[in-house]
Order: sequence, then structure tokens, then C-alpha cells
Amino acid sequence: MKRIGMLTSGGDCQALNAAMRGVVKTLLNSGEQIEIIGFLDGYRGLIYSKYRMLSGSDFSGILTVGGTILGTSRTPFKTIKDPDEDGLNKVEAMKSNYHKLGLDCLVVLGGNGTHKTANLLSKEGLNVVTLPKTIDNDLWGTDMTFGFQSAVDIATDCIDKIHTTASSHGRIFIVEVMGHKVGWLTLNAGLAGGADIILIPEIPYDLNKIIDAVNLRMKRGSHFTIIAVAEGAISVEDSKLSKKERLKKMEKSKFPSVSYELADQISQATGQEVRVTVPGHTQRGGSPCPYDRVFATRLGAEAGNLILKGEYGFMVGYKSREIVKVSLEDVAGKLKALDPEAGIIKEAKMVGVSFGD
Amino acid sequence: MKRIGMLTSGGDCQALNAAMRGVVKTLLNSGEQIEIIGFLDGYRGLIYSKYRMLSGSDFSGILTVGGTILGTSRTPFKTIKDPDEDGLNKVEAMKSNYHKLGLDCLVVLGGNGTHKTANLLSKEGLNVVTLPKTIDNDLWGTDMTFGFQSAVDIATDCIDKIHTTASSHGRIFIVEVMGHKVGWLTLNAGLAGGADIILIPEIPYDLNKIIDAVNLRMKRGSHFTIIAVAEGAISVEDSKLSKKERLKKMEKSKFPSVSYELADQISQATGQEVRVTVPGHTQRGGSPCPYDRVFATRLGAEAGNLILKGEYGFMVGYKSREIVKVSLEDVAGKLKALDPEAGIIKEAKMVGVSFGD
Amino acid sequence: MKRIGMLTSGGDCQALNAAMRGVVKTLLNSGEQIEIIGFLDGYRGLIYSKYRMLSGSDFSGILTVGGTILGTSRTPFKTIKDPDEDGLNKVEAMKSNYHKLGLDCLVVLGGNGTHKTANLLSKEGLNVVTLPKTIDNDLWGTDMTFGFQSAVDIATDCIDKIHTTASSHGRIFIVEVMGHKVGWLTLNAGLAGGADIILIPEIPYDLNKIIDAVNLRMKRGSHFTIIAVAEGAISVEDSKLSKKERLKKMEKSKFPSVSYELADQISQATGQEVRVTVPGHTQRGGSPCPYDRVFATRLGAEAGNLILKGEYGFMVGYKSREIVKVSLEDVAGKLKALDPEAGIIKEAKMVGVSFGD
Amino acid sequence: MKRIGMLTSGGDCQALNAAMRGVVKTLLNSGEQIEIIGFLDGYRGLIYSKYRMLSGSDFSGILTVGGTILGTSRTPFKTIKDPDEDGLNKVEAMKSNYHKLGLDCLVVLGGNGTHKTANLLSKEGLNVVTLPKTIDNDLWGTDMTFGFQSAVDIATDCIDKIHTTASSHGRIFIVEVMGHKVGWLTLNAGLAGGADIILIPEIPYDLNKIIDAVNLRMKRGSHFTIIAVAEGAISVEDSKLSKKERLKKMEKSKFPSVSYELADQISQATGQEVRVTVPGHTQRGGSPCPYDRVFATRLGAEAGNLILKGEYGFMVGYKSREIVKVSLEDVAGKLKALDPEAGIIKEAKMVGVSFGD
Repeated sequence: MKRIGMLTSGGDCQALNAAMRGVVKTLLNSGEQIEIIGFLDGYRGLIYSKYRMLSGSDFSGILTVGGTILGTSRTPFKTIKDPDEDGLNKVEAMKSNYHKLGLDCLVVLGGNGTHKTANLLSKEGLNVVTLPKTIDNDLWGTDMTFGFQSAVDIATDCIDKIHTTASSHGRIFIVEVMGHKVGWLTLNAGLAGGADIILIPEIPYDLNKIIDAVNLRMKRGSHFTIIAVAEGAISVEDSKLSKKERLKKMEKSKFPSVSYELADQISQATGQEVRVTVPGHTQRGGSPCPYDRVFATRLGAEAGNLILKGEYGFMVGYKSREIVKVSLEDVAGKLKALDPEAGIIKEAKMVGVSFGD
Repeated sequence: MKRIGMLTSGGDCQALNAAMRGVVKTLLNSGEQIEIIGFLDGYRGLIYSKYRMLSGSDFSGILTVGGTILGTSRTPFKTIKDPDEDGLNKVEAMKSNYHKLGLDCLVVLGGNGTHKTANLLSKEGLNVVTLPKTIDNDLWGTDMTFGFQSAVDIATDCIDKIHTTASSHGRIFIVEVMGHKVGWLTLNAGLAGGADIILIPEIPYDLNKIIDAVNLRMKRGSHFTIIAVAEGAISVEDSKLSKKERLKKMEKSKFPSVSYELADQISQATGQEVRVTVPGHTQRGGSPCPYDRVFATRLGAEAGNLILKGEYGFMVGYKSREIVKVSLEDVAGKLKALDPEAGIIKEAKMVGVSFGD
Repeated sequence: MKRIGMLTSGGDCQALNAAMRGVVKTLLNSGEQIEIIGFLDGYRGLIYSKYRMLSGSDFSGILTVGGTILGTSRTPFKTIKDPDEDGLNKVEAMKSNYHKLGLDCLVVLGGNGTHKTANLLSKEGLNVVTLPKTIDNDLWGTDMTFGFQSAVDIATDCIDKIHTTASSHGRIFIVEVMGHKVGWLTLNAGLAGGADIILIPEIPYDLNKIIDAVNLRMKRGSHFTIIAVAEGAISVEDSKLSKKERLKKMEKSKFPSVSYELADQISQATGQEVRVTVPGHTQRGGSPCPYDRVFATRLGAEAGNLILKGEYGFMVGYKSREIVKVSLEDVAGKLKALDPEAGIIKEAKMVGVSFGD
Repeated sequence: MKRIGMLTSGGDCQALNAAMRGVVKTLLNSGEQIEIIGFLDGYRGLIYSKYRMLSGSDFSGILTVGGTILGTSRTPFKTIKDPDEDGLNKVEAMKSNYHKLGLDCLVVLGGNGTHKTANLLSKEGLNVVTLPKTIDNDLWGTDMTFGFQSAVDIATDCIDKIHTTASSHGRIFIVEVMGHKVGWLTLNAGLAGGADIILIPEIPYDLNKIIDAVNLRMKRGSHFTIIAVAEGAISVEDSKLSKKERLKKMEKSKFPSVSYELADQISQATGQEVRVTVPGHTQRGGSPCPYDRVFATRLGAEAGNLILKGEYGFMVGYKSREIVKVSLEDVAGKLKALDPEAGIIKEAKMVGVSFGD
């Protein structure tokens, strides 16, 4: 008999349920006797012992369902080592609950913050297997994370819709795309949506180059321009500031995000109307796309397989079209950013996309 | 031989191309010899004589294409009777170009502002036929406008996507829906998306009632709430202010729209996280939904038919499932708002939707 | 206290769950104490006393879910008055179970066959309220049925996809659309998808007219043609046969449906490749479109309202944009077909659609 | 100055236009003077000298448009070396037109058949660059072909829709998926759609195993089963026949495809209703999915790059997440089938999918 704890942590995304279904179906099909304990609302559930006993039927029909049946939360990441407001040592609480419940292992689905804590728990002696969940695709050790392609689809759909209104009105439109500190999502959605200019954190932008690109389009007879801007996009000047200086500058800014500041700057420089659209949280919502369903199912199956074999301390990742296991130690604390010299960026430039550099 | 001018004016929306295709196919199929002149960027094209000669092939394959092949603009509405910056009398310019080009009639696709000008031109002696275009569904004299159902679909998709993330995180989410001064779009998208609270201009809201509704949901075990807020939603207090006072208050506000103000108020009153999502211009973009394609085609065909019969001065509208003609005089300057006692609102209340009243 | 039985019968369609949710939410919000008994797999559940007690939570989150949580079946319609294989009098069994369970009323969601049985039960003294479910839109007494618009969307999407491949290959494509004996679905999907030829049961077709239309397109330079064919489409000659003769002819035919026969005939007459695509059961599947969700919710709410008022023997329908009640007697046994002189057909002809007549 | 010929050949698919746009944008952005000649309807255009001169604007706005602006045809493949009906040597005609038009190279987009001819032309001394187009993903030398992911999305959507109706009616449903002689498309769509049984050519099926899987599901309380069947699926017995014997058997069969035969066999063995749905040509239609748009753009850009560098005789492919060039000689005449021992198949089995083996 194996008793497995499971939790989803951090911002939700598509295919969390698909991945959990993959794990559980693999375990239940193995012939071993399995008990599944689902902790509620991320690590919170493990810390405060909030959980539900789950059976196979809880995982039936959820392949296509967005969100997470376990709930999630972001709360305890930044201060995981500090006591909570009541003085509780959170790490000790998690260890204690893990042992009290007699768990054989803990399956954790999450992104970068989640993996730091997962690695910490692994070092503390818990058996941990993780799955790479994030629309940002910024996890080290895997070519791809689930949620990413679904978010690309949604952000692209947004750019597609903006295209018809931009061209009808002859306007400049900025679409602000999620992605945290990296440009994977914006680059892919921008390319797929035919954005003329794509701004990503990995390539700090020069405002003048953006304005040149807009003007060049107008000169060539294109009376509208679509700009895909990563939420983490940054100007060359700001990229030279310290993190502290940058935060200070952002706090003082009258603009809610870099996109609105850019809109103002471009409008002033070109005399054109510039509109901003922010698809926001819709990018993490809704049913996972078929790519993510297959991908998350595969990852989940291999996570189940690791558990059956008793191999712990790994994230299940994806390298060169095969599912692989990656040591949690190698994953935790690292960020997978785009290489500005990557093939995809060169190709984007070949077809005329400006990165403002 | 008939020579027809055509223009699309005001904010773009879905099915403008479908409607124009309906008009032109009907004219070309009639056997009469027809010439089509497409004015560019709304009334601007007529004022400044910017146009293209169009043939049947220009209207082939555009049934499913969003936006407008003629371009559009909002500019000249508010000041149509005043001279432009160069002293040009715009109304006289339109009349003059109409006659110079030897037009038999002018087909105008637009919303409320557009119809005021269309009626003015009709009174000035031009032969005008109009088609009711707006995602707001606020045009008098027709049960339905094209663009509306497509926008409902998009706003609903947004609420659907927010639903999964809201329920996973246990958050309150506000989705701000377009609709100008009326609640048609928000009400329909809110009902279709299963919003718990729907706020529309026709029913000024009481903040306390909203908070009661949120708290009641929490008490019943629903840890998340979806609120669909019309961009024109208004509190009971603000609804008592004069238009001037209201504008002043809005200018002073630190919030970009009523949704953000509400988010702040609800967050403070309930202690819950409240997030805002604004699908914005995506609501008017992309391919028209099948409903709008059929509807716009039907309206366009009947507009073509009126032209063939030489009946002018009408908007082609929709009443009780039949296409009808409505005098431009009856349409211009009126707003079709929701009746707070309408069946659909009563039914929404029956299934438990709160309108904050 | 009220105890309500509920069942869904006949072919499933979109928004069945949305409609049931509307009924139940209205009843539960009324303040009255309510018990809901869900009969499984249509009338079968009532006949053989297969049911589940349902609570409010069973109806939570199902607004957007396709199919029916109660299951459905077509079985007992044709022979409802005859005993079943074990000699059971089915009508008596239903009456008996209704009374044994102490039901105050029975809510039935279904199409034409379902309504015949519902009317019969009503005449037998049971309190019955019904809701008009069918993708065919062929129910008497209501302008619209739920499921219809969702099916239009799916069939249109199919035609859209066929359009790109038809135009790339220069082929004639037939898309066979559902709709039983009427043409509502085919006409609307055909118009929305820009079909060149639309064949519906209400307008028997002349093969020569179809071939003329194809040839005219080729002569005008259109190297492909899209034909939307209702599953019930019929030639002028076949429309003159008796029902018996027609069935005989169909049995002998080597073609699985009228579309394949037409493809063969058109191919032989024009020398062109003709392909057939049959979206089939996908037309009744998947999440309901926003239109259907709103519509089914409204109908469900008013059905709940009738129950609260104790008004029985009605179908809740839709007339001129308002929800109405229609006597079951008026609904049962009638078919709502398209009028060949209806505005929408005239308008389709104006824009150049051929009906093969 | 460079003069480039371009053609699309074989069955159309999504992202053909996106790929051509990538090539042409790269060439036009390079600063070199470029002329583009588009041959119409595949190799036919090159053989019979049917072409159009194309400019940059022909490739604007086509990123999202399905099909191919050049048209395509399947005709001349099988008999490319034989003379046509008028005695024309087709290969010589292509060479002659290539030289007459003064082409520097020929860009060919196509699948397996197309690549045989492309390799032949390359051997005959023409400068050829190719791009891997097919929804089947069966081209040697590349991990992925464009069109594939879009087709997966469409086939998955079909399975999703069938899911709701299958579960409502408690039926067994077969969805017949394209893919020619390989199972990539069926496997991915089947996994994404949660199919219970997936039958692909690479794993011949044993009918008894399928029936066991259906019965096991019923025993466990699942009253419906979804079976994804590749159009090329084959039974163990038939896999032992010679190609000739198999064709003979198929000709004699009363069933239009293997799916219908299976439906009949399963129905007889289980006593359950079995329905078949065939999405057919819709799988190659409509707008490309974002994945394919990015992928085809990247491939097109690198094809443009090869041309600028004067490197010919290559297909542009994809290996381990980078774009690579593959010698045409290595591509032509090979088939990329699924390895029955591949990770994805093992993972599918882990989560309980039956392959009938």
C-alpha cells in the first residue's frame, strides 16, 4: 500500500487537473493499493492539515477542466522559513503532517517558488516528486512547462481580435502579455499573432528603435501597428538600474504597467492614437489546449511511474521530446530565460519583427 | 444604372463586412447595373472625398472577416455641424461630394452617433439607407444590432476563463464588460458566464447590497465570486449627481474605471482579494459569430432591396424575428436601454443573480 | 414542501444542464422547501423507478457543461402505449411511480417525441411542465429551442473549415447538416458559412438547378462550391412518393444518405470531384454557446416559476423575445417547419444562394 | 536579384500560407531584390506554366488564413515520370519552365509524395528548398510537420463534443481520425480527448482485446466508451496479409472504412449501440493554431535564409527544438511512423489507454 499526498501551489494554470489525473490513473492502474490525500490550497493545506481523501472518481472527467480541483495559493513562499503569524514553524508543520499522515511521498505541482519549497522539503527528508506547472515556461531543467501552450493560444487569440479593430481604425495597439520575468509567452503569442514589434525582458528596448519601427511601417503604407509587450519588458535605461531603484521608479510612476507608459511615450512621439489591452488572468484560465493535455498527461504518468519505483527528489521534465527526471536541486532557484541569440529570435527578426534593439 | 456610396462609421465591430457583402450581393444579383463607391474611414471619406471604386470581388470571402474593409473613424460626430480645423463646412462637403460623384444613395453602417449624422444627411436631401451596427445593442427601433452577439460570446469566454482561476484561488473577480451607457452586453455575458453579481447602468447599485451578496456566498460555502460590471455601471449615489458633477468626480478619482473603484471598496469591506479583468477592445474584434453573420447578411439583403425599390430614409432593423424598415427620424438621438422590469432581468433574479439593488 | 421529478429525454443537446440549473436555482431561491428527484436516462427512469435524489450542489457548475447529468434515451417513445417486453404497461408504471414518490410535478426536457408522451402524462392527470430541447428547432409553439444555436455554431465551424480546403483544391464539397425533417439548422449554418447552395426538406430540389448553379459559379471563375445539405433534404421526384415508397427506395440505395447520392450525381454531371463531410453527432455535443446558456436559463427560471405558482400542463416557450407558456396540447404532435416564403429564405436568395428550386 | 518559384502540393493543410509568408518576408527583408513567382495548383502549375507574379502585399494578412493562396493538387505524383495524357514529359516540362522563367530556385511545400518529386527535380539539377507540410506528421527527417498540431486540435475538439453525447446516452462512440498510414494524429488527439481505446496502424489490434477493454469499463461502472481509430488502423490478421490481399478485402467489404467494420463487430460482441463519427476534411481546414503559426513562420524564415545563402537540395526540418536542414535525398521515400515502444505510447498505457494489443 502506498499513501500519496498531492498539492498544487502558486498561480493556477491550465492542465493542473490533467497532470494530477495522469499521476493518479498511473498509480491506480499499477495494481498496487494506493491512497491519495489531496491537500487544499497549496502548501497551506499541508501546513495546516487541510485535506481530502480522494478516489479515482475524483480524477475522472477532469482532463479538460481548467484550474485545480485542490485549490491553490501563493501565500507561504517568500517566508517559508519564517514562522507564521501565530509563531508556527511552517517547515516543521509540513514535516510533521507528512509523517502523521503516514505519507510515502508528496506530489507537488508548481512553478519556480513552489520548487524552492519542494527542494527544501526534499532536503528535509520528505519523498518529493514535482511537476512543472507555469504559463511562463521559466522553469529550469525542462524545455516546456504545462500551461504554457494554452496561455500562448489565449494571448494569440487576443492579438488576433485586436488585429481586426487595429486595422479598421488605423491605430497602434499594445497587447500586454503575461510571463513574469521572461519573454517566452510574449514571443510565441506575438509571432503567432503577427505582432510587428515584440518587447521581452531578455532584450531591453530602446524607445527610439520602437518609434523608428512604427514610423517605418507608416512610411510603407501600414496604417496600424501591433506591439506585444511582456509584463516584464524593460527599457535599456531601466535595465541598468538596481532592482531597488527600479522598484522605486515603478512606485512613483503614474502608469499601472510598462505598457501604459510605452503607450504614452509612443503616442507623444508619433502623434498616433495608442491603445492598451491587457488579457490578464484570462491567460491562465479555461480548458487546457490539446497540446497541454497530452503533455501534462505524459508528465503525470511518468511521475506516477517514479513513485511506483520509489525514486524521489525529482521534477519530471521534458528534454528533446522525451520525458526525463531532473534533480530538484538542479531546478530550484534558477530561472530559464530566452537566449537573445536563440534561433527563434533570429527567425523572428528575419521575418521583420522588431525587438526594439 | 445605380451608383451607391457606402461607409462604415464609429467604433468597428464584427459583421460589418458581412452586412456590406449582403447589400452588394443583393444589388449585383438584381440584374441592374451597379457601381459601388467605398468611402474610407467613415464620414471622413465622404467629407474629404477619399474613396475606392469597389467590385463584387472586393466583397467575396469577407463574410467571416472581422473589422471593416473600408476603415472607420469616430472623429466628426460631436461637431458635425461645426466647421473643421480648416474652416470647411463638413455637412456641405458631404452633400457636395455626394452630388459630384453622382450617387443614387448612400449606405451607412453605424451606431447611435452615426445615425444622428445619417438622419441629418437624409433631411438635407440625400438618399440614405442605414444598418444598425454596435456591440452595445443600444439602437432604437431594432430588437438587435449586429456585433452584439459576437461581443457577448467574447465577454462570456472571458468570464469562463476567469471562472477557473477564481475558483482555484478562492478570489473575487470583477470582469468589466463594454456596452457604453447600457447593460445589454453585460447582462447577457454575465448570465451566460454564470456571474453571481451583474451591475448595469439601468439598475444603479448599492455597495452594501453587493457586499451582502458576496458575504452570503461565503456563508453558503462558495469561496469565490464573479462580478460582471458594465463599463457604464453606476452607484445609487452617483446616479443622483448631475452629468457635470459625475464627470468631475471621475476626473478626480484615482481609479481608471468604476470596476477598479468597486474592487477597492469590496476588498476593504470583505477583507478578500479582488481582481479586475478588462477584455476591452477584444470585444469588438475577430470573426463574427454565426448568429451575427446570418443576421447581418439578412439586414444587408433587405437594405439592398430598399435601394432597388428606391425607398430611402430608413434604417433596416429587426422586430419580432422579421426584418423591418424604420424611419431614420425615429432612430436618431434615442437610446435603447434595458427596462429594469424586463423579463430577462426578473429571470436573472429568479436564478439568484444579484444586481446590487 | 414541494417534491419535483425531473428528466431529460430524446437525443441529448447543449444547454440541457443549463436549463435544469435554471429550474432548480429558481425553486431553491424561492424560499419554499424543495426536493428534487432526477430520473435517469429519460422516461426509462420514471418507468423503472431509477432515480437519484439531487441537491443544489448537483446543479452548481453545470451551466457550461454539455450533455445531461441525468442521462437520456430514445427508447420508449414509439411504443409508449404498448407494454414493454415484460408486459409492463409503461404509462401506468409512470403514473404509479409518480404517485408512489409523492411528486408534486414532473419537469420534462425534450423534443417532439418527448412532448407527445408529456402531453399524454398530463392528460392522465400528472402535473407536467416541459422545456423545448432540440438542435432541430422544430417544436411547435416556440420561436426557438435550446441547443439550436449551439448546433448552428458547430455546423458553421465545419463549413468554415471545409471552405479553406475546398478553395485550395478547387473542389465541390457537400456538408451534411442535421435537423431531422426540417431545414432550420442547415439554412442558418449554410448562410453563416457562406454556402453557395442550401438544400432543405421544405424546398424539394431539382438536380438540374443544382448543376446549373455549380456551372454558373465555374463560368464566373469560382472554382469551388460549398453545398449545405440537410439530412432530410429531398428531391422533387422523391417528394412525390409516398412515405412507404420513399423508405423502400432508401433501403435499396447504395448511398448511406442523400448527400452521398447527390455527390455522385453532381460529380457525374459536372466531371468535378465532389467530397462529402458529415459532422454528425458533434453537432449536439460540447459546451452550449452563450446564446443557449442565457436562453435555457431564462426558460428554466420561468418553468420554476410556473411550478411555484402551481400552473401545470405547459411547455415554456419563446415568442417575440418574451418567455411564454404554451399548452402541451397545442405543442404535441406538431412540427414547426420553415415556410418557403419566409423572409430569411427570400433574403438568402437575394444574396445569391441557390435552393435548387 | 533573385527570382524564386514557389508551389504548394498535395492535400492542403493549415499554415501553408504562414510558411510561405515566412519565406517571402525573410527574402524581402534581406535587402536583396527578389521576384516571386507563384505556381498554381501544385506541380501542375510548374508543368503547364500556370503562375502569378506575387508581391509582398500578397503575403500580408495571410498568417492566420487556412488553405493555400496558390492552390494545390494531388494529381501528378504517382505517375510523375510517365508522360501525361497528351504525351508531355512532365519532368522535362518542369525543368524547361524553370529555366525559361529564369528561376534561381524553387520552394516546394508538401508531404511525402511531394518530396519524392522535389528530390527528383533536385537530382535533375534544379535548386530546390522544401518545407514539411502535412497533418500526418509522417515526414522523415523532422520531429514535426506544420498542420499537425492544428489537426490535433480539431480532432480533439471532435472527441470532446462526442464525449458529452456519448456519456449522456451511454453509448460506444468511434471517432475516425486522419493520419494516412501512421498514428501520430490519432494518438495525440485520442490522448488529448481522453479516449479510452486508441487504434493506430503501428500497433495492429486484436478485436478481443478491444471488447475486453469495453467490457472492463462497463464492469467498473463506465457506461460509455470513446474509441479513437486511425484511418489506417489495422487488425492483427489483416496486418499479415499482403498489400494486394488487403486491397482486395477492402474492396469487397460492405463498410466504407475500418471504423464502420469495427463498430459492427463491437456492437455484435457487446450488444451495445456503437456510433461512428468522421470529422474528415475538417481536420485540414481552418485557421492554423498558434503553435503551427510560430512553427511554420520559423521554418519559412530558415528556408528564406538558405536561399539567401544559396544552399539548395534541403528540406527545412525540426530536431530537438532547433530548425535544421535535411538533405532531400534523406527525406524522399521514407515514412516516419510511431515506434510502438515510444515513451508516449508507454505513458498512454500507464494511464489506462488500451491499444487493442
